[in-house]
Amino acid sequence: MAGVSCAPALIALDWGTSSLRGFLMDGAGAVLEQRGSGHGIVNLPEPGVPGFEAAFAAMCGAWLDRFPALPVVAGGMVGSAQGWREAAYADCPADARRLAAGAAEVGTARGVRILIAPGLVCRAPGAAPDVMRGEEIQIAGALLAHPGLAARSLLVMPGTHSKWVVVEDGRIIRFATYMTGELFAVLCRHSLLGRLMTEEAATPEAAEAAFARGIAMARDSVPGDLAHQIFAARSLGLTGELPAAALRDFLSALLIGHEVVSGTRRAASEGAPLALVGEDALCRRYGAALQQFGTPPAVQLGNTAPAGLFHFAIAAGLVAPPAPGAQETLP
Amino acid sequence: MAGVSCAPALIALDWGTSSLRGFLMDGAGAVLEQRGSGHGIVNLPEPGVPGFEAAFAAMCGAWLDRFPALPVVAGGMVGSAQGWREAAYADCPADARRLAAGAAEVGTARGVRILIAPGLVCRAPGAAPDVMRGEEIQIAGALLAHPGLAARSLLVMPGTHSKWVVVEDGRIIRFATYMTGELFAVLCRHSLLGRLMTEEAATPEAAEAAFARGIAMARDSVPGDLAHQIFAARSLGLTGELPAAALRDFLSALLIGHEVVSGTRRAASEGAPLALVGEDALCRRYGAALQQFGTPPAVQLGNTAPAGLFHFAIAAGLVAPPAPGAQETLP
Repeated sequence: MAGVSCAPALIALDWGTSSLRGFLMDGAGAVLEQRGSGHGIVNLPEPGVPGFEAAFAAMCGAWLDRFPALPVVAGGMVGSAQGWREAAYADCPADARRLAAGAAEVGTARGVRILIAPGLVCRAPGAAPDVMRGEEIQIAGALLAHPGLAARSLLVMPGTHSKWVVVEDGRIIRFATYMTGELFAVLCRHSLLGRLMTEEAATPEAAEAAFARGIAMARDSVPGDLAHQIFAARSLGLTGELPAAALRDFLSALLIGHEVVSGTRRAASEGAPLALVGEDALCRRYGAALQQFGTPPAVQLGNTAPAGLFHFAIAAGLVAPPAPGAQETLP
Repeated sequence: MAGVSCAPALIALDWGTSSLRGFLMDGAGAVLEQRGSGHGIVNLPEPGVPGFEAAFAAMCGAWLDRFPALPVVAGGMVGSAQGWREAAYADCPADARRLAAGAAEVGTARGVRILIAPGLVCRAPGAAPDVMRGEEIQIAGALLAHPGLAARSLLVMPGTHSKWVVVEDGRIIRFATYMTGELFAVLCRHSLLGRLMTEEAATPEAAEAAFARGIAMARDSVPGDLAHQIFAARSLGLTGELPAAALRDFLSALLIGHEVVSGTRRAASEGAPLALVGEDALCRRYGAALQQFGTPPAVQLGNTAPAGLFHFAIAAGLVAPPAPGAQETLP
């Protein structure tokens, strides 16, 4: 932290559907303190604005008592139509300046104002629009903390709704959403495929073999194949070709494999370094899949939301840009 | 019915997961009486064999009181591992004789025996096995009632788990399952996509436009695209490009379209007449999709299970084959 101020400079809120995370950050973007709560926008202490106010006061009241002049920024579902104040989707191509230009502001009961980042919409001729809300902040963080990705890269963000994001010249050029995580969850929980699955985990060898089989099947798929191929998560169990404990691994690999097949083709960013961004265990699963496709990730990043909120605050003029080289201290 | 006996010759049971249907049939395969109950194999009056006995007695007791010597056949999930008596999957290629050869028999408390048809398994080198149970009976019925399909045809059976079935020389050569109906149901009920959907139906014009858009998107898909494209059922709603009431039509068309793209390619049966078999409203939906792909169905058939059970009974030697030409009276 040599040469970097430790004085608080920003309160940053990553405010999603099911959780709220708060970060007290210094002027170099380092996290000094962080707090978490379950007060996502669908789980507020009470409905509507009073609920947002209460969640905000519980999260940030003590910080603001100590540092009443700090700017406050927020990103995620808090800016959706169901959030505190809607920040309408901004268009691609977009960088942090575009996010700042499209931000919404909300006043709070204790007098401070919160600048809320917008989501992004990607419109391509002849295609359905695609949208993100929250990931644009993580991307801004990845590009601030890892400037080498800014010139040209493909960011893969696995999750409930994975995003494949093409970055050029520091801007998000286009992106595509894959409902892979949610598909996996609803198929395991609510479809016939879950019936043969077990709670117990497969042996590492069986899990690995099932994973490889799912990836191979995805690689050999023809257009439209998914609804057919997922049935193998039943037939392979019924016929004893896969142990019940490995059916989950097979289905996960099949769905991830389909995402990789399509995502790689749609991104059309051959030669650009691929970065995985997100939760570690899931990123490692995607890393294994990408490896089997011969396109291993160049780098894996964790939670880049705090850095992204800091980047957003810089672009909005709420904090000064850190001195050159200081990015290396970013999370 | 000229020249055809009206004397009862067979009791045929279509015994599925959630319902049981019974048919009293004459020697030409015509249905004289039919009954239905909710006693599918997961909804018996009591668990296990006593439950099967009770459901059977309630369905067939009065028929057997009047005609105690009638043979009884059954098809569907009653022959699964969770059924009354397991009839193991028979291999493809398969015709009604193969079904008869692989049948299982169970004795009942009132002394009569029930011959239960097996399901089918389709094994192709390097591919996961595929299975069906119940559809093989419907297919046997379609081929008995419409002999023109026997030489070479592609049977498409839309449903929770649609089947695409290649028939040659009266035999099921190969088939592929698509979990299209179940995918649609779990996505509407349990995923984020259901949130924007409404109970109200779209106007016919809006429904048709949304349907056409889903089909067009499926036609333009690249391998692995489904988890991406279904997200359009949210983004098109969020951005107002489709009315909320039409999102269901869009998603249905997208899923059916994917099935048609893959099914047509996997069947590899160019030039063979395509027959839709199943529930009328769903078949008409598939017919509209196939039309948009330039491959309209040659014929649409309804419930061919009674004819199939009759075909199975003939193959098992339990009833005499009907006189030539009598097929025309089959349902």
